[in-house]
Amino acid sequence: MTSTITISIDVMGGDVGAAMVIPGLDVALTRHPDIRFILFGDETIITELLGQYPRVLKASETRHTDVAITMDQKPSQALRKGRRVSSMWRAIDVVKTGEAQVCVSAGNTGALMAMARFCLRTMSSIERPAIAAIWPTLRGESIVLDVGATMGADAQQLVDFAVMGGAMARALFEIEKPSIGLLNIGVEEVKGVEEVREAGSMLRESDLPMIAYHGFVEGDDLGRGTVDVVVTEGFAGNIALKTAEGTARQIASYLRDAMSRTLLARIGYFFARSAFKLLREKMDPRKVNGGVFLGLNGVVIKSHGGTDAEGFAAAVDLGYNMAKNDLLEKINMDLTLYHRSRSDSGNASGEGVS
Amino acid sequence: MTSTITISIDVMGGDVGAAMVIPGLDVALTRHPDIRFILFGDETIITELLGQYPRVLKASETRHTDVAITMDQKPSQALRKGRRVSSMWRAIDVVKTGEAQVCVSAGNTGALMAMARFCLRTMSSIERPAIAAIWPTLRGESIVLDVGATMGADAQQLVDFAVMGGAMARALFEIEKPSIGLLNIGVEEVKGVEEVREAGSMLRESDLPMIAYHGFVEGDDLGRGTVDVVVTEGFAGNIALKTAEGTARQIASYLRDAMSRTLLARIGYFFARSAFKLLREKMDPRKVNGGVFLGLNGVVIKSHGGTDAEGFAAAVDLGYNMAKNDLLEKINMDLTLYHRSRSDSGNASGEGVS
Repeated sequence: MTSTITISIDVMGGDVGAAMVIPGLDVALTRHPDIRFILFGDETIITELLGQYPRVLKASETRHTDVAITMDQKPSQALRKGRRVSSMWRAIDVVKTGEAQVCVSAGNTGALMAMARFCLRTMSSIERPAIAAIWPTLRGESIVLDVGATMGADAQQLVDFAVMGGAMARALFEIEKPSIGLLNIGVEEVKGVEEVREAGSMLRESDLPMIAYHGFVEGDDLGRGTVDVVVTEGFAGNIALKTAEGTARQIASYLRDAMSRTLLARIGYFFARSAFKLLREKMDPRKVNGGVFLGLNGVVIKSHGGTDAEGFAAAVDLGYNMAKNDLLEKINMDLTLYHRSRSDSGNASGEGVS
Repeated sequence: MTSTITISIDVMGGDVGAAMVIPGLDVALTRHPDIRFILFGDETIITELLGQYPRVLKASETRHTDVAITMDQKPSQALRKGRRVSSMWRAIDVVKTGEAQVCVSAGNTGALMAMARFCLRTMSSIERPAIAAIWPTLRGESIVLDVGATMGADAQQLVDFAVMGGAMARALFEIEKPSIGLLNIGVEEVKGVEEVREAGSMLRESDLPMIAYHGFVEGDDLGRGTVDVVVTEGFAGNIALKTAEGTARQIASYLRDAMSRTLLARIGYFFARSAFKLLREKMDPRKVNGGVFLGLNGVVIKSHGGTDAEGFAAAVDLGYNMAKNDLLEKINMDLTLYHRSRSDSGNASGEGVS
């Protein structure tokens, strides 16, 4: 027996909005025909588009909203103007009521996180939510968090991120005991920031059954896929993510340039075009589109605002997988387990658990 | 009239040591025949190698040292065992005495920075040194600092980095008024850490004649070459640098894999091999080898420990250019100018100048 997954969609989010979102849902349905959508946005626009996508029409229920959050609104503005009435808020709200299991929005990150925190609330046992990204690696895929929900994190918050990232890895990659690394500079004991070192000691000593703590990793371990989950605070995580994206684009540009420079290069390109196609697919940022908000009482997926239908579909796929594999339940279980182990050990380690 | 540049070399530094360093000097001399070297290290080893490199022999004076700092020694150990007697220390020391204009070492970063700080001392008007890296971009090259000298930086330290990075850009790129960006997450006013925001206000208000403050930049602006100098604290800077290196290696690996997978791809590769050669050159990390220690009373260049002769030669080239273009003098001038502008404005801005 497989139960239907219901996903709420902020149709008005993203640089393009409905004209990108609705075709994206159509793509997602080809892979997961059992999804049911609740669409929030301008009914006129949605209805017209659904005429072209009968598969989406059949799988969806539309709920009209008048207010759309723009990409440049600040979180506080968005909350003031969009609370209870915007497509973004209402898409999140049905996750709270349980009508939907996941919400997907390509709207602006700051507003989405502010609304999600306000509406769903942070889980009782953690202090701060995080945004987890899927990172393509030489070994497959890893999870990296936090990539920009908040800035700075103390040791306890980093440990929370590790536990939540571990639960997500189990849900997404179906690994029993994912390996976890703390992003740092240099692997020598002497290096690194205080919080990261302390988080390392806490993870080592707590010896949790559901994760394998690997130790520190560095920036170049991200692409290598050294661990399943890389934990860092949001400032460094966001910079790492954007730097990798930028470097990939830079090299793609070098490659295009080199391959069109001479006749021989163009001939070579012609012969090897299927290889280049493979490479483009490997490097396609749309395939790993979707940041997962972790640590809230509900799952919200942030799609890149500038993506296309294919990319939005990937974010929907991610949401589908998170719901299908009970991400929220796994996180709750793991956090309970972790906090039990902490109180069992009576905080006697003197490791500065605050 | 061109005066000779004297560069002191820690011959024992790096994963390989003398057998990589001496051939590297030979490569550097083909480009800059006017360099004079003072070599510090084991005389027996050096003399034997110099037999094979008569050009280096002719340009060098060797000074024997018994102690070599290993790649895994902690800074404190290195100082304890190597102060005054190691090849690393003595190579730095002749920069202090003025015998050499620059020191180049492929030894371990922590030890080299500790010794350089201890021996040369930090410039009187700044609090902390930084390591500046050359970053290849779509527009050419940028300077990024700090990539790992210290962790965390307050607003004043970030402003110091901006001034020093600007001076280095003028020395290296021969731009009159280099553009400076502060690495941040998101360009909206609402985002970013407090120190970065404050440094932004300070740079905007000080309105220095020798730099053009651009504003915030993000991780993907690094490869794009949006500004000439990107300023950040050492933790995020080091993670950005290593992440970019890792991503480049990852894509190179995808590319190799794709190009050898089918016969057609291999044929294509054969035709386009000169294009691939060009691409490899573009992506060659050896070409941008060398971190410049800024903020000390003397110039020290850190070469990657695992590089080869070609890479070490690039670090020597960098040192040569820094000396030839009076980096130290430019930094001193700019810092004086900056501090004068600060005291002129009487700290009346209320911008929290500490």
